[in-house]
Amino acid sequence: MKIVFLGAGNLAYHLSKALQKAGHSVLQVYSRTMKAAEELANLLNCKAVNNVKDIIQTADLYIVALSDDAVKTIVEQLDIDTKNIVHTAGSIPIDVLKGAKNYGVFYPLQTFSKNRELVFSNIPICIEADNLNFQEVLLSLANQISENVWLINSEERKYLHLSAVFVCNFVNHIYSLTKQMIDEKNLDFKILYPLIKETVNKALDGSPMLSQTGPAIRNDKKTLAKHINLLSSRHDLSNFYDMMSKSIQNLHKLHN
Amino acid sequence: MKIVFLGAGNLAYHLSKALQKAGHSVLQVYSRTMKAAEELANLLNCKAVNNVKDIIQTADLYIVALSDDAVKTIVEQLDIDTKNIVHTAGSIPIDVLKGAKNYGVFYPLQTFSKNRELVFSNIPICIEADNLNFQEVLLSLANQISENVWLINSEERKYLHLSAVFVCNFVNHIYSLTKQMIDEKNLDFKILYPLIKETVNKALDGSPMLSQTGPAIRNDKKTLAKHINLLSSRHDLSNFYDMMSKSIQNLHKLHN
Repeated sequence: MKIVFLGAGNLAYHLSKALQKAGHSVLQVYSRTMKAAEELANLLNCKAVNNVKDIIQTADLYIVALSDDAVKTIVEQLDIDTKNIVHTAGSIPIDVLKGAKNYGVFYPLQTFSKNRELVFSNIPICIEADNLNFQEVLLSLANQISENVWLINSEERKYLHLSAVFVCNFVNHIYSLTKQMIDEKNLDFKILYPLIKETVNKALDGSPMLSQTGPAIRNDKKTLAKHINLLSSRHDLSNFYDMMSKSIQNLHKLHN
Repeated sequence: MKIVFLGAGNLAYHLSKALQKAGHSVLQVYSRTMKAAEELANLLNCKAVNNVKDIIQTADLYIVALSDDAVKTIVEQLDIDTKNIVHTAGSIPIDVLKGAKNYGVFYPLQTFSKNRELVFSNIPICIEADNLNFQEVLLSLANQISENVWLINSEERKYLHLSAVFVCNFVNHIYSLTKQMIDEKNLDFKILYPLIKETVNKALDGSPMLSQTGPAIRNDKKTLAKHINLLSSRHDLSNFYDMMSKSIQNLHKLHN
């Protein structure tokens, strides 16, 4: 397939490389800034453009991998009625592409950074299309780069995107808070790595509800009070601790 | 070393097995209930006791692996002045064992379940002792079962224990909430596994502060509002989402 990428961010970087590796050719990379477009285009050995008017009209597929706000703006500037087009955003409905010849969503459910290599074959790709033929095209394309392809509609995708905020952004935030606390005491964050890894393995092995441990679920008031007290100089952390403990007790229906 | 275990829970189960494997002999397992004591004692091929008076006096080391509340109660019933004794609790100071011949702490920083095998050699063991000679004894013992041994005093250990609540209990709670949300929409929790794993790998690879992503740190008010709206039927979850987002913005000093 001849593909044009709109967007040159982390997702575009990883997805375009994976598609090229699978034998497809990326014709152009569009980005608002020439520098960003060129950076990725040079890697892919294709053309960079920063003007929507310079985007060629004859590609087989247009992949819009832009920030949520930019998707609609750029799509309105394209003549989409003759094009096959997908976006890659978790939180945007398929309908934003309405009017295209064929349209759909190609949403890789992963956190992307340019400086980390990823094995694309494990990454879940969520596919949605406006018609069955195009759905087959997208499924086939996704299957060429991943063994983890799912049909997910716009309503379901909203909840997946929301879930991703929980298990990625919120979990990472807990690591940030913890590292700050550990650093302040001149301890080494690495001492927690085996616990961090085992916690994840345990949760993925069965049901996280069943593997919940700690003072909150035991309703161990002495330890809860000790911990709040240890955090007394950091109101943000003591509030956080209290809120998390109450949320655990609420989910597991413990009452004080 | 001839060792007596006081306690027959998950930690006692894993630690006693590891010590036996390293060539030490466990003489007795004490537990308040005979059933629990026998279960572990049978595995170790040693004696079970449920009365403190039946604990033999001539072991080289007594390991108290009981719940926080039970440690003090049991220790008061032992003639500790002639004994070498350690406890395994993160949140209890070394001083609870004051009066023993030699005393210390042997704290494996991990989450233990009976039905999950663990490679003990990776598990951080935090050592504290009341004197340098006994410290050497405990370090040597710890090094026989783990390659990850640390000298940690009671003050530091308090913060490690608190940190463990964050990275283990709080993170697991986020997985529980997410799974509940995913289940309600008849989606498969497994679709999030690659994201969950990559989030952890990324955080452990560098600084979690630097790898924070998502709508809160971007101060993407549209997506934040969309997500809160998606959770409108679940006040506990929408409050949770709001609190986490504010905590992220607060840590990264964004202001609305």
